[in-house]
Amino acid sequence: MDDCIFCKIVKGEIPSIKIYEDKHVFAFMDINPVSEGHALVIPKIHVENLWKIPEATLSAVHSASKTIVHAMTMAMGPVSVAAVQLNGRGVNQVVMHYHLHLIPRASDGEALKLTAWEMIPGDMDAINRTGAAIAAAIEND
Amino acid sequence: MDDCIFCKIVKGEIPSIKIYEDKHVFAFMDINPVSEGHALVIPKIHVENLWKIPEATLSAVHSASKTIVHAMTMAMGPVSVAAVQLNGRGVNQVVMHYHLHLIPRASDGEALKLTAWEMIPGDMDAINRTGAAIAAAIEND
Repeated sequence: MDDCIFCKIVKGEIPSIKIYEDKHVFAFMDINPVSEGHALVIPKIHVENLWKIPEATLSAVHSASKTIVHAMTMAMGPVSVAAVQLNGRGVNQVVMHYHLHLIPRASDGEALKLTAWEMIPGDMDAINRTGAAIAAAIEND
Repeated sequence: MDDCIFCKIVKGEIPSIKIYEDKHVFAFMDINPVSEGHALVIPKIHVENLWKIPEATLSAVHSASKTIVHAMTMAMGPVSVAAVQLNGRGVNQVVMHYHLHLIPRASDGEALKLTAWEMIPGDMDAINRTGAAIAAAIEND
């Protein structure tokens, strides 16, 4: 897509710190990193989100993510990694080209706020109702 | 694994609100939901994290996630979805059986704190150095 910053990065029209590339996937460092080592894995084709990405492309992105987290451990020593993929403006997807954040935390690194959510028991009736509606949507599709 | 709560859920030894199941994958509602509709997608085999999950299983989990977010839209109306997968105690992985959180936010739903991170420009020298180290680890593996 002509005005997509990630498409321009894939084509080399905007510079990036590339860490990985294959037929389907391009990966580079996030320049607004949440932590040291924060990388992005994107499909080369322009697709907006998880609803729209073809299955083969989705598999390729996640296969690449496995290669990259292995490399992070080789390059940075033991890390924990948050893999975060946002779909839609409502959850702060900023660039509308599917991307998977790989956000490592070294053992001596600062805690990641984004993973620090509390475990609060939910309303079981509401959870049952929504779960039944989602299951039915899958069943009937 | 005998003492793994998610293995017990897969085997039906602990009840769950199931929304999806196939040969490789089991999906159910999170009972400590971050938002209405919060679901978990897990492999049936016990694998701890992204480093250890076999490629075919990884593809199956993400293929199922695509089916489930489609169903969420059918069941709940338009939603944005944060897909979050935590690897390691350092990023608050609580159950040590690989799991993908699908956390929807309805258009009238409360903002998700976990996706509200700020974009703060990083130190380009440090990013370049770490990127080069990760790229080299991939190259030399």
